[in-house]
Amino acid sequence: MPQRYDIAIIGTGPAGISAAITATVRNKKILLIGSADLSEKLSRAHRIDNYPGLPAVSGEEFARALSAHLDSLGIRITDARVGAVYAMGDWFGLQVGEEMLEASAVILACGVMQGKSLPGEEDYLGRGVSYCATCDARLYRGKTVAVLGYCAEAAKEAEFLAETSARVLYFPILREPLPRAENLEVIRELPRAIEGALKAERVVTDAGSHPADGIFVLRDAVLPDRLVPGVRTEDGRVVVDLAMRTNLPGLFACGDITGKPYQYVKAAGQGNTAALSAVEYLSEKQ
Amino acid sequence: MPQRYDIAIIGTGPAGISAAITATVRNKKILLIGSADLSEKLSRAHRIDNYPGLPAVSGEEFARALSAHLDSLGIRITDARVGAVYAMGDWFGLQVGEEMLEASAVILACGVMQGKSLPGEEDYLGRGVSYCATCDARLYRGKTVAVLGYCAEAAKEAEFLAETSARVLYFPILREPLPRAENLEVIRELPRAIEGALKAERVVTDAGSHPADGIFVLRDAVLPDRLVPGVRTEDGRVVVDLAMRTNLPGLFACGDITGKPYQYVKAAGQGNTAALSAVEYLSEKQ
Repeated sequence: MPQRYDIAIIGTGPAGISAAITATVRNKKILLIGSADLSEKLSRAHRIDNYPGLPAVSGEEFARALSAHLDSLGIRITDARVGAVYAMGDWFGLQVGEEMLEASAVILACGVMQGKSLPGEEDYLGRGVSYCATCDARLYRGKTVAVLGYCAEAAKEAEFLAETSARVLYFPILREPLPRAENLEVIRELPRAIEGALKAERVVTDAGSHPADGIFVLRDAVLPDRLVPGVRTEDGRVVVDLAMRTNLPGLFACGDITGKPYQYVKAAGQGNTAALSAVEYLSEKQ
Repeated sequence: MPQRYDIAIIGTGPAGISAAITATVRNKKILLIGSADLSEKLSRAHRIDNYPGLPAVSGEEFARALSAHLDSLGIRITDARVGAVYAMGDWFGLQVGEEMLEASAVILACGVMQGKSLPGEEDYLGRGVSYCATCDARLYRGKTVAVLGYCAEAAKEAEFLAETSARVLYFPILREPLPRAENLEVIRELPRAIEGALKAERVVTDAGSHPADGIFVLRDAVLPDRLVPGVRTEDGRVVVDLAMRTNLPGLFACGDITGKPYQYVKAAGQGNTAALSAVEYLSEKQ
């Protein structure tokens, strides 16, 4: 039987980090899943003027301060992507790669999808379209896959796919970093739609059409109700109350995923509240 | 006609400071009312472990960091106590001492009253009981007043009362600082109730009974619906939605006054959200 964490926290922006800090201070056994390279994400931020206590901080300095805080409490980040979260009654199953991890409570802090999904993307999800390379690479062993790289992590995942697929077509929506592999081709065209029949069959761009057996759309965040079946959303945002509770007992959400404003200190504050609500949930469950 | 501020922010804890910072960054003309001596209040805090980015910070260091942030943006604190906030339709009147200040929007960030009110306190409010020395001193010129000092600011206010009243009886519930004045007597007894007939007439303590014409109960915070007539509360907390809106258009609340958890980063996050909601309210009103 796998070990069961008290609280799994998905996302390593200010919301997830704040939740991890407070849950740890409250002596909970946590799993913090996200990107180990905080600075890469945050350092893209403009100067932050309104995080109280850190005046006119750069994204890079802010990321360093958060990392130092995690280090001071001995909190480690599990560098992985969660494919799905399943509410099992009094615990949750988290699909991470080919593993299923367990936690008694879950905090969603994985941000918000920028922009709209592509035409066809949602229709073919699970039928040729995937949001998770580590989860679904095995389905396309020896085949051709397309990777739509909307986020920095996409390059790494494309290289991973190149290890088992015959051919990888990489569309760099985010220009850098670029993946490298012998069987990988970088196609500098802008994807406009995903088309197919019973299943997805090709990526249509502003310049042409590219057939593929599997199409990986890799963004910083996915639609929350795709990640957690059954969670209540409105306009793509998770519906929470003031205590950051969702409609699913034991599931909490914080930060951008709960809606505007998209602000660092708001995210950190909600992370703190979500962690304390999760602690309360765990103690009531006992 | 008095000048009208865009946003008046009442309270200088992390919620009010965060609101002031974000409103200023958004170019609003703000009035920040509270205690100029942040450090005195905050430095009573234990070590703070869960304010992300400032690991294991002392209350004193945190207060200094917030002060420095305010200074860096040129934000000044108006050191005063607000007696009442009146919703006038599309603006608010704030009773500050004998002045009435005006603001288009108001953010309540004045914390939560610790403990319960005394028996009789609420019954006689406005009939011999007052929460604001600067507001009501003139009513007791040449008379005897009692001051129940629950907060650090009470000593200063008792000295102010001693300037116009004939006699001041000071009950130091908080032991320090103590007020000094020739006509002021410090009575080291614990108030248990306020009694009277048509109006309040005496402070009843664990050791006796002390007649007074006016009784000033000076706490860090007052009940929000006493401060703002018409604001919706539940169990003494202001009811807000996720955007920190109250039931009164243009009135927002954040921090401890909205309920648990009582946490610095949650307060700061809500302050940020309240400020942005106030900014949105102002732009919609135009």
